[in-house]
Amino acid sequence: MKRLTLAALLLASAAPALAQASGPIDPRVAKLRDAALTDDVAYDIVEGMTTEVGQRLAGTEAEARARTWSVAKLKALGFKNVRIETYRMPVWERGEERAEIVAPFPQKLHLAALGNSGATPAQGIEADMVIFPTYADLAAAPDGSLAGKIAYVGNTMPKTQDGSSYGQAGVARFAGPALAARKGAAAIVIRSIGTDTHRLPHTGTTYFRNGVAPIPAAALSVPDAKLIEAMAKRGKPIRMKLLLTPRQVGEQESGNVIAEVPGTDPNAGIVLIGGHLDSWDLATGAIDDASGVAITAAAAKRILDSGKRPRRTIRVVWFGAEEVGGFGGRDYAAKHGKERHAIAAESDFGADKVWRFESTLPDSATPVADRLATALAPLGIVRGTAGGGDGADIEPIIAGGVAGVDLNQSGLDYFDVHHTPDDTLDRVDPEKLRQNVAAWTAMLAIVADAPEEIGPVVRAVR
Amino acid sequence: MKRLTLAALLLASAAPALAQASGPIDPRVAKLRDAALTDDVAYDIVEGMTTEVGQRLAGTEAEARARTWSVAKLKALGFKNVRIETYRMPVWERGEERAEIVAPFPQKLHLAALGNSGATPAQGIEADMVIFPTYADLAAAPDGSLAGKIAYVGNTMPKTQDGSSYGQAGVARFAGPALAARKGAAAIVIRSIGTDTHRLPHTGTTYFRNGVAPIPAAALSVPDAKLIEAMAKRGKPIRMKLLLTPRQVGEQESGNVIAEVPGTDPNAGIVLIGGHLDSWDLATGAIDDASGVAITAAAAKRILDSGKRPRRTIRVVWFGAEEVGGFGGRDYAAKHGKERHAIAAESDFGADKVWRFESTLPDSATPVADRLATALAPLGIVRGTAGGGDGADIEPIIAGGVAGVDLNQSGLDYFDVHHTPDDTLDRVDPEKLRQNVAAWTAMLAIVADAPEEIGPVVRAVR
Repeated sequence: MKRLTLAALLLASAAPALAQASGPIDPRVAKLRDAALTDDVAYDIVEGMTTEVGQRLAGTEAEARARTWSVAKLKALGFKNVRIETYRMPVWERGEERAEIVAPFPQKLHLAALGNSGATPAQGIEADMVIFPTYADLAAAPDGSLAGKIAYVGNTMPKTQDGSSYGQAGVARFAGPALAARKGAAAIVIRSIGTDTHRLPHTGTTYFRNGVAPIPAAALSVPDAKLIEAMAKRGKPIRMKLLLTPRQVGEQESGNVIAEVPGTDPNAGIVLIGGHLDSWDLATGAIDDASGVAITAAAAKRILDSGKRPRRTIRVVWFGAEEVGGFGGRDYAAKHGKERHAIAAESDFGADKVWRFESTLPDSATPVADRLATALAPLGIVRGTAGGGDGADIEPIIAGGVAGVDLNQSGLDYFDVHHTPDDTLDRVDPEKLRQNVAAWTAMLAIVADAPEEIGPVVRAVR
Repeated sequence: MKRLTLAALLLASAAPALAQASGPIDPRVAKLRDAALTDDVAYDIVEGMTTEVGQRLAGTEAEARARTWSVAKLKALGFKNVRIETYRMPVWERGEERAEIVAPFPQKLHLAALGNSGATPAQGIEADMVIFPTYADLAAAPDGSLAGKIAYVGNTMPKTQDGSSYGQAGVARFAGPALAARKGAAAIVIRSIGTDTHRLPHTGTTYFRNGVAPIPAAALSVPDAKLIEAMAKRGKPIRMKLLLTPRQVGEQESGNVIAEVPGTDPNAGIVLIGGHLDSWDLATGAIDDASGVAITAAAAKRILDSGKRPRRTIRVVWFGAEEVGGFGGRDYAAKHGKERHAIAAESDFGADKVWRFESTLPDSATPVADRLATALAPLGIVRGTAGGGDGADIEPIIAGGVAGVDLNQSGLDYFDVHHTPDDTLDRVDPEKLRQNVAAWTAMLAIVADAPEEIGPVVRAVR
């Protein structure tokens, strides 16, 4: 509070009055929201999916088992029109992964191949390293200067509540391997795109495009990366032995799981919500994204069980193959893009509390956004102004002119766990999960029943 | 403070007066202690040992490299009589380790073999599991009832400041494998003896004695253990595939590294301090026990550099082969047990702050203990009454009648990291390390110069 100016204090004291501009909250919405604070459905879904399915890498038999499990669960919860929509997509699978420093100080390292990584020969490779503290340093290296070398890229990631540091630090993962390949590197290892200091690497997809041949590419755990940086400070050449044997297994089947709470007005537009069913292969995907599918389904079930059919159909989609390139979201848009959607909203940022609400609701629906802000404020949720429509799975449908509603979870601790073996049920706090369900329940109760027209929207540049 | 009674408050207000019973602190001691709060030597040792040596499993070439590194470091710091004393001891080495649940829900697991574990065949084994929530449940199983099965033992460990929960929970590791073997088990996996929920297993030694043939024995990370317990609640049989290929490699050379600050009075008894040089093989052993050797050496160096030679010789020993059975401590006692020792003190409980001072100083040295309490109190250290002489390496010399002085570090977070791949430099807080150095410096300044006779002591039953 120390740095608050008088103007800020005046603004703060005016806020309740502003919130009340949209009138008092509908008692039915408040009741549904507050009842959701005792929700057990979401945790039950996360516990069940992580225990009875576990990892569910896109396009594998594990993801197929997850779809079967999900259909049974969603039907048991009473949803209508529960179904799977399949599509085909290319699949990359992890192999063995080992690395060690052989000089100047022999040490074994913990690392994980990045999605789409190339493979080393079966016996591995041994090469001198070139150390780049940041992605910008790698970018500045002359073409061909990495011939036969193993590149290392640092790119430290700070913690941010809105997760904005992911894009900034993540470029080392998204684009670093292709860049190193173009400069002739034999392989690349990066510091994990993560904010923890545990001995667990953060995997994730990287892309080799425009004819760039994939090279072996992996992420070191943060302590292992710091160890290499400490060795580099000694000024002696660093030599690494690296074995990675992932492979591209070709096109396989993946799919979206869809369930509905049918509305009374087929012309009012669908309320599309969900998360993604697939996970990375290193863990059980509890926060990425069993929590997202669980939160959205648990909230929809509260509307389903409320005794009053909503005006708009609520469609819950548990998207397939998000992690490896957003295949489920694109398939959904291809098959359903012509249906009228009122809004789209995704939960894919962990299991921490929702701290902010944002939307791109059109002017016609400004009162809806105002009512949302009023109903969400008691949950500790502030109203943001930066936009809405976050989520790789809903991106294609948002791009078609659908309004986005975001219930942003705190990202402060998300990247401690994101894409690591640590993404297990232990990372899910049942109380925080309930706050999410309450926020989503309030959102659905307001948006699905809103008498106002919602959308389409003309997308502004964000 | 809410639960403090009036009597407790009166006692608290009387404490300064009690402390002053031993008179004001010697200004030289206070000055040395406070200067140590800016120490950089200890952190430099930990950083160097973890970066330039890394893991140093007892009896391996890595431990030998650590001895070479240590001799160079201790000589560079100015210590006298720096030397290595070698001995031979049996060596066990880790091999491959993989485990997965194959039914009812296929899931891969993270685990680490326990020291002295037997090996599975090269292709692994597959067997039904028998789930024991606690070690007591395993103990109650009828003989022969585990024939051909893989036993699982839970035994949850709570956090304690004094580390007393280690013995209580740890029995599952120390004795569980031999017990399961005697009951016919094909193998055993235990929940890690740890207080964290990361996907990193806690290794450690287990013992097969009295002719019990070793079986494969490993610790699952806590989340993996909880996953199996969650599966067990579903009531369906659990089947595991397990591969462990460790081996006993026979007798090898290990050694203690010794360095001294020579005293003026050869008859006053040696002040023996130190920690252990070896580490487990999964990490760089930053808190177990690079920190212990660093803290004790850094404190001794402050006496060495103080401009006044101490009355008693301070002998710093970096013991070898502690983790795998205390071989270095026994070798030291065999070679030096007949020399007069005034006290022995070991730092082997991490890098957290010292919270308690205890000792078994004899009655003749009660004023020394009082002065210690007075000098340590400003560092936030309370005086305990339970004894002294903790530390596997000094146990044999203590058993011979030497007084023990303990500077107990907080164990609340120690078992989050203990014996896991996470025991790296990231776990060491330089400020907390400095508090340790200050406590040890004050202790040395008082004990090494005390005019009183110290020891031998008659060991009371503790």
